[in-house]
Amino acid sequence: MRVYDIIMRKRDGLELDGDEISFLVDGFVAGEIPDYQMAAFLMAVYFRGMTARETGDLTMSMAGSGDIVDLSCLPGRKVDKHSTGGVGDKTSLVLGPMVASAGIPVPKMSGRGLGHTGGTLDKLESIPGFRVSLSMDEFLSAVRGVGIAIVGQTGRLAPADGKMYALRDVTATVDSIPLIASSIMSKKIAGGAEAIVLDVKFGSGAFMKGYEDAVGLATAMVSIGGSVGRETVAVISCMEQPLGFAVGNALEVAEAVETLSGRGPLDLTELCLTLGSYMLVLGGKAPDPASARAVLEGLLASGKCLEKFIQMVGAQGGDTSVGRDPSFLPRAAVVAPVRADCPGYVLRADALQIGRAAMSLGAGRLTKESPVDRSVGIVLEKKVGDRAEDGEVLAWCHAPDDASGEAAVDMVKRAYAMSPDPPLSHRIVRAIVTGRGVEAL
Amino acid sequence: MRVYDIIMRKRDGLELDGDEISFLVDGFVAGEIPDYQMAAFLMAVYFRGMTARETGDLTMSMAGSGDIVDLSCLPGRKVDKHSTGGVGDKTSLVLGPMVASAGIPVPKMSGRGLGHTGGTLDKLESIPGFRVSLSMDEFLSAVRGVGIAIVGQTGRLAPADGKMYALRDVTATVDSIPLIASSIMSKKIAGGAEAIVLDVKFGSGAFMKGYEDAVGLATAMVSIGGSVGRETVAVISCMEQPLGFAVGNALEVAEAVETLSGRGPLDLTELCLTLGSYMLVLGGKAPDPASARAVLEGLLASGKCLEKFIQMVGAQGGDTSVGRDPSFLPRAAVVAPVRADCPGYVLRADALQIGRAAMSLGAGRLTKESPVDRSVGIVLEKKVGDRAEDGEVLAWCHAPDDASGEAAVDMVKRAYAMSPDPPLSHRIVRAIVTGRGVEAL
Repeated sequence: MRVYDIIMRKRDGLELDGDEISFLVDGFVAGEIPDYQMAAFLMAVYFRGMTARETGDLTMSMAGSGDIVDLSCLPGRKVDKHSTGGVGDKTSLVLGPMVASAGIPVPKMSGRGLGHTGGTLDKLESIPGFRVSLSMDEFLSAVRGVGIAIVGQTGRLAPADGKMYALRDVTATVDSIPLIASSIMSKKIAGGAEAIVLDVKFGSGAFMKGYEDAVGLATAMVSIGGSVGRETVAVISCMEQPLGFAVGNALEVAEAVETLSGRGPLDLTELCLTLGSYMLVLGGKAPDPASARAVLEGLLASGKCLEKFIQMVGAQGGDTSVGRDPSFLPRAAVVAPVRADCPGYVLRADALQIGRAAMSLGAGRLTKESPVDRSVGIVLEKKVGDRAEDGEVLAWCHAPDDASGEAAVDMVKRAYAMSPDPPLSHRIVRAIVTGRGVEAL
Repeated sequence: MRVYDIIMRKRDGLELDGDEISFLVDGFVAGEIPDYQMAAFLMAVYFRGMTARETGDLTMSMAGSGDIVDLSCLPGRKVDKHSTGGVGDKTSLVLGPMVASAGIPVPKMSGRGLGHTGGTLDKLESIPGFRVSLSMDEFLSAVRGVGIAIVGQTGRLAPADGKMYALRDVTATVDSIPLIASSIMSKKIAGGAEAIVLDVKFGSGAFMKGYEDAVGLATAMVSIGGSVGRETVAVISCMEQPLGFAVGNALEVAEAVETLSGRGPLDLTELCLTLGSYMLVLGGKAPDPASARAVLEGLLASGKCLEKFIQMVGAQGGDTSVGRDPSFLPRAAVVAPVRADCPGYVLRADALQIGRAAMSLGAGRLTKESPVDRSVGIVLEKKVGDRAEDGEVLAWCHAPDDASGEAAVDMVKRAYAMSPDPPLSHRIVRAIVTGRGVEAL
C-alpha cells in the first residue's frame, strides 16, 4: 500500500477502504507519513468529501490511535455530551449535575480550548479550591461516589486527531464536515462514550454559521455514531446571540447555579432540558424524551440538581458555598453599563461581537499559554425581543479597569441592533437529528 | 501576507495576485514556507485550476527563482524548442542542426530525464568522445562558432520548479495543466528563450494520453508565452506509436543521421520540418511556415543539415565519423526478431509497451542514478498501416543477452495488433496552437 495511491484515489473521488484509512492514520501518527502527504490528502478530502463509511473508519482509526478510557467499572450505558461551542455556553455546568441527579453517571473529560471565554475547566476553576486534574483512579472513584466528575483530559486520547487538527489549522482544511465530524466523534469514543448527545450550534457565535451547515455536520456525526455502534442524537440550537445572559468564567458559574436552582434564563434551561432528555433516553433512564423531560423538571424543582452540583464541587475540592451564594466568586473591579441610545426592541445582540468584547476584557485565550481572567465578562440585561427605553441598560461590562471597560462598552454597543417593532421570536432549539432523520421544531 | 490566506483563497476559487504568487514561490524556495503548506496549495490548484494571468505570474516567479541565462551575445531572437516527450523521440538531434543550418542559433540545454529511453544527452553520449558538460563560456562560444551546441543544464535554473515538482511527484498533484505548463515554461524562460516552439504529444507513449488534454496543455503554454512576452507556438503530434523506427540511444542517433541526410522516416522528418518551420518564422528567418519549410527541405537535400550536425559533434569533442557511418556506435550483443504470427496490416504498435520493452533492455532509467545501456533498444520494421505476412519481422530487439532479448520480444509482440484490413492513416502532426487559436490539421 502506498500513500501516493491513497491521495490519488481520494483526489479522483474514489472511496477508500478501511485498510487504506488506518494505514494513513497509523503511518501519520508514527511519523512515517510526512506532513506534506497528509496535507495533500486533507485538501483532497476538502474537495471530495468522504462517504459515511469512510468517515466512520476515519473516526475509529483516530480513536484507536491512543488510549481508550475504560469506563466498564461504572454502571449502565455511558452517555457523553459534546457541544460545538459558542458564546456564554455553560451547558456542561448545568447539564452534568442535572442528568447525574437522574442517575446517569457523568464521567466528563473536558478541554480548555481557545475562544472568547475559557472552556468548562476554566469556568470551574473560578470556584476556589476546585481541582480539575485528577488521576484516572480519583476520577472514576468520584464518579462512582457522587455520580459526576468533570476533569481535564487524562492520558493520550486520539493523538491522531490532535496531530491532524494542527496540520488542518495551517493548511486551510479545517472547514470540512467529514473531518470536523470524525475529529469530534473520535475524541468522544476514545473517552469511553457508548452513546452521545451533541449540541450543534449555528449562528454568528458558532463554528457553523448557517443552519444547513449545522444540520449537515450533525447528520454526519449521527451517521458516524450509528456506523460505529455509538447511538448518537444531535440537538441543533441557535447561537446568534449568547446563551443565557452571562459571558465570562465566574459570571457563567453564577448563572449555572441559578439555572440549577430552577431560576435560570429560559433559553439555557430549555437547551439543557432538551439535551438532558435525550441523555436519559439514550442512557435507558426514560422511555422517551417527553417523560425524560418531566423527570428532569421535577429534579430541578426539587433542588436535587443543585445538590448534585454542590456534591461535585465538594468532591473535587471546591468551596461548596458557591451553591448557596456565588457572590464570593472572583469579581471585576469595574462594572460599566452599555445603554440604549434610542427606544425600541432588541433585534440583534450579536454573539460573535459580544464574545470578542469578553475576549478583549481577558475572559478567553488566544493561545494555549494565555492566562484567563476569571472575574471579567459581559452580562446582558436585554436579549433579542426585549424592550428597552432610551438610556436603559442593555448589558454590563465587568472589566479589570476603566479603559478596557470603556472599550468593551463600545464593542457591545455595536453588537446590538434595535428595531421599532418587536422581531419574530425563535426557539433556542431548532431541530433534532437522530438516526431516523432531521426533525425541525 | 499569510500563506494560510493564500491557500484559503485558492481553495475558495478566488484569483491570486502576482504579489501573493511570488510571496508563495519565494518563501517556498527560501525554506520559509513548509512543504505541507505548499502541498495543500498545490492540491487546491489541482481542483481549482489557475487563470491565465495567475499561470503567467507563477511561471515568471519560478523562472526568476534562480539564474536566468544571458544569451544576449548571440545574434537574433533566441528560439527554443521543447518536447513533452515520447518513445523514440530524437527530434532534438535532427531539429537542432536543421534550424542551425538555416541560421537560427541553437543554444540548447537539455535534461537527462527519466523514461523509457535516455534523454537527448544520453543519446549524444553514445557518440564516442562527445562532451555534454561545457562551461557557460565554452557553450556560448560553441554556439557562436558552429551555430549550435547541446549541453546539460548549467547553473541553477528555476530551482522553485525543481522543488515544487519533487513535492508534486509525491502528493499526486502532477496532473494539473497550469502546474505542468508553468513548470515547462519557467525552465525555457530561465534558459534564455525569447520565443518557444513546443512539441506537445498525445497518445499511449505521451504524458498526455488524450488529444484534448494535449491541446489544453498547449493552449495554456501558448497563453503563458503570450502573457510574458515570449511568443509561443505549439505543434500537437501523435505518440500512439514510436516516432520513427528506432527506440534506444545509439539506435536513435543512427536514425537521426539518416534523417539529417534526407533519408529518414517520414513521420520524424515531417515533425521536424513542421517544428523547424515555426522556429524559422519565430526567429525571423522566414515570413511564413510554408516558405520556411521550403528553405528547410532545400537544406536537408543539400546535405547542409548533416554537415551542421557533424560540426556540432566535432566542436563538442565527438567522433565526427558518426555522420558518415554510424555503424561504429555501441552495438548490442544480441539482435532478436519479433515476428508476425498471422498475416495482416499493423493496426497498433503501442508506444508505451514498446517503450517498456526498451526500458527492460536497459535503454532508460528509473532513477537519476541508474546507468543507461546506450547500445540496446528496439528497431521497428513495421508501423501502423504496414502490411506484414505470417512470420515476417515486425521489429528487432537489440539486447545485451538472449534472456532479456526474449523477454523484450514477448513484450514487443504484445504491443502489436494486426487487422485484416488496412487501418485509416493519420498524419503525425494533428494541430497547430498559436496565440490566435487551435488549427486542426
